[in-house]
Amino acid sequence: MSQNNLYLALIHYPVINKREHIIGSALTTIDMHDIARAARTYGVNTFFVVTPFEDQQILARQVIEHWTRGVGGEINPDRKEALERIEVVCTFEDVILKIKADRDIDVKSIATSAKHHDGSITTAALKQKLVEDTAHVMAFGTAWGLADEFIETCDFILEPIKGKQTYNHLSVRSAVSIYLDRICNS
Amino acid sequence: MSQNNLYLALIHYPVINKREHIIGSALTTIDMHDIARAARTYGVNTFFVVTPFEDQQILARQVIEHWTRGVGGEINPDRKEALERIEVVCTFEDVILKIKADRDIDVKSIATSAKHHDGSITTAALKQKLVEDTAHVMAFGTAWGLADEFIETCDFILEPIKGKQTYNHLSVRSAVSIYLDRICNS
Repeated sequence: MSQNNLYLALIHYPVINKREHIIGSALTTIDMHDIARAARTYGVNTFFVVTPFEDQQILARQVIEHWTRGVGGEINPDRKEALERIEVVCTFEDVILKIKADRDIDVKSIATSAKHHDGSITTAALKQKLVEDTAHVMAFGTAWGLADEFIETCDFILEPIKGKQTYNHLSVRSAVSIYLDRICNS
Repeated sequence: MSQNNLYLALIHYPVINKREHIIGSALTTIDMHDIARAARTYGVNTFFVVTPFEDQQILARQVIEHWTRGVGGEINPDRKEALERIEVVCTFEDVILKIKADRDIDVKSIATSAKHHDGSITTAALKQKLVEDTAHVMAFGTAWGLADEFIETCDFILEPIKGKQTYNHLSVRSAVSIYLDRICNS
């Protein structure tokens, strides 16, 4: 596989809340750190933080600035190296357009969910696709997960992570880490 | 394997700082949430939060109380189910004694590290050991990782998680999630 073809997008709208209503969620800055570190470890090309809210975009950029060009980057160069790979954009369409503009190749989108969806693909199948000369963006939902209306626009949906029991309420930080390990090492 | 034989311990002393000096670290409450949720997903028996600092033990117990018997547990029963499996103790010796007192079986300790150590075992080897009628406690370091003086007291040390590159600066939350997935699903 070429890790260069793998991208991540952390979606803050449209996601669902506990009552399954569509909402826009607030940024959780620890998501940026944990996911950027895992992305860098597994050689992901770019990690997009996707939020339509301008104040949240500003906050995300302040975090990145601190850790890449500010004091944080001097104190912790490893963190700098991870957070340098983050881009902040308004919508998922912007993610697709940016990759196409940057590389002039096809882009496929992969939704993730903690719930089973018919027709979902395995991580082994996704790994196979990464050998193609096509960019693949895995989209992860914050809050209670991606809204169905978002999932329906994606090219694929990945099978949920299952442990040994019926309980599977992982944090998005854990889910990203596990999927990347499965894709890169399985 | 029997998940019932697998335990986790999150160590706040003795760990190292960036300069490799031995320190006691402060509690990061998001560690409790993420690790408890992953532990519950993969059927871990008990997740021990280990800190010698009384104020930090009080804080940890307040978090657990809020999410298991307070408002948090009513709002989010899934979180309750995860945090119910946390125990707060003073030292790693307390972890071993508690398991022995509870189950009257042998207990083996497994250190984890982002660095390679000679004689480390694979996750596949650890998975094999879990079929034995022995409790196994995986110890994870906060801050810059477990101190060597702690690692030397453990029965085994697990091979580090490697991605596709030399960079491997995962958060402890990501590392726990990946190891559990490898042990339970590989």
